[in-house]
Amino acid sequence: MTNGIKDGFYREITPGGFGLIIKAGKVLISEQSPFQKVEIFETDSQLGRVLTIDDLMMTTEGDEYHYHEMIAHVPMMHHKAPESVLVIGGGDGGTVREVLKHKTVKRVVLCEIDGLVIDACKKYLPTISCELDNPKVEILVQDAIEYIKDKKNEFDIVLIDSTDPLGPGEGLFTEEFYTNVKNSLKKGGIVSAQSESPFVNKEEIKKMYNLLKKVFPICSTFTSNIPTYPGGYWAWAFCSETVEPLSYFADDRCDEITKSCKIYNKEYHNARFALPNYLKELL
Amino acid sequence: MTNGIKDGFYREITPGGFGLIIKAGKVLISEQSPFQKVEIFETDSQLGRVLTIDDLMMTTEGDEYHYHEMIAHVPMMHHKAPESVLVIGGGDGGTVREVLKHKTVKRVVLCEIDGLVIDACKKYLPTISCELDNPKVEILVQDAIEYIKDKKNEFDIVLIDSTDPLGPGEGLFTEEFYTNVKNSLKKGGIVSAQSESPFVNKEEIKKMYNLLKKVFPICSTFTSNIPTYPGGYWAWAFCSETVEPLSYFADDRCDEITKSCKIYNKEYHNARFALPNYLKELL
Repeated sequence: MTNGIKDGFYREITPGGFGLIIKAGKVLISEQSPFQKVEIFETDSQLGRVLTIDDLMMTTEGDEYHYHEMIAHVPMMHHKAPESVLVIGGGDGGTVREVLKHKTVKRVVLCEIDGLVIDACKKYLPTISCELDNPKVEILVQDAIEYIKDKKNEFDIVLIDSTDPLGPGEGLFTEEFYTNVKNSLKKGGIVSAQSESPFVNKEEIKKMYNLLKKVFPICSTFTSNIPTYPGGYWAWAFCSETVEPLSYFADDRCDEITKSCKIYNKEYHNARFALPNYLKELL
Repeated sequence: MTNGIKDGFYREITPGGFGLIIKAGKVLISEQSPFQKVEIFETDSQLGRVLTIDDLMMTTEGDEYHYHEMIAHVPMMHHKAPESVLVIGGGDGGTVREVLKHKTVKRVVLCEIDGLVIDACKKYLPTISCELDNPKVEILVQDAIEYIKDKKNEFDIVLIDSTDPLGPGEGLFTEEFYTNVKNSLKKGGIVSAQSESPFVNKEEIKKMYNLLKKVFPICSTFTSNIPTYPGGYWAWAFCSETVEPLSYFADDRCDEITKSCKIYNKEYHNARFALPNYLKELL
């Protein structure tokens, strides 16, 4: 059985041999870009509308905040005054929306390789893409591998909100790329990168962290629940040259941001760095 | 589409409109007891063999430890010397196996309504049921609602490892039952009860905690990832008359038990009580 929509159900079976099934409604868009197939369909479930790329789950209206609040707020709360932020991938706009909740932010660069993702999400996922037209946001439809090459001392925060290490996302999981990301950081800068499912993608995680640790002196992991991702459990890398994850916390920004979040709060944030034994052994 | 195995795939769509799909292999047992349909099938996935009841996921060889380590060790580490433990439901034996890792334990009563669950798991899920023949374990094939009625001052720990609040499990989610459970506790006793998926079963959780809070002066919640349960995220109630969840911790037992666990460690344990905003609002 192949992944995708058939007979009214979206199915996605991971290499682990199990996966997700969703009762699918109307398909709002299903288009092939030069890079990938981009699809958004309706559901009458609590997930609302669903975005998939190449028949892999990207996000849903009903659970997107589980992912976007974590990738943005966990690193940003450990920076004293993040002003310039780079989001790599993330064409749905959810990460940008969360980044802009930090009042210190003056400039967000969104570098997304596929303009179709941005256009489709602007049209069909307005609650996620709602801040993409914010004047602080600069959208570049460009390969981040090229974009990052000559950037030095430019960003306080870089968020790697990529697809999996297959297809167009593959070059975002290399030592060369991570080195360029590191060089693009200002002093005190922090990177967070989506790093797959600890339960399902054990080999990919191991490989990714081996590379990250070569490049970044400080490399931690935080995890949280994502209902629609493989295993319901996701990891992100927290990387920096100088900032230990629990060394500074922006209490001044936290209360206000927590009020606007469905998941995020300080206690929950700190708890994200406590890992299960099997993941500690893996890293 | 109904839940269950069809065309080589097990499907389970929750009331949320989405759910789990697993490539199913040979069905080892599929029998109707007086209470429910009990089925175990093989998979060639990382889940190994899978136990379902009435076409609802109960446990799998590949991820069972996510559930059993949490329901047992979180309450037990907050008791100074748990000697007598009651497990309600839990016929697969996974919870009993974890309970017996605590060397203080002298007696475990397993009260499971359905003998077929116990027999099937003993035969087909030996890595889970392996301690059911331990001489410290007393197995009662009996309705826990009746069993608990006249018990006073008997157990240090009661673990409610039940199915959902439907079918034979329904009576395990009532004020009367919780009151009887409370009366069965010795001084300093602690209860932990599975309390459904925070993402999918919001109404059931609200109802259950309203009842628990009427009965127990102390009622907290802890959560963890379960890859094969709805939303990949599960909650348990921590209830007591006198014991606050973070008041005492059994450091003397923790190190040894952590070595035998795939998930459980002290840091991870403490982090379990940090809840996302939406769940805090619900409770």
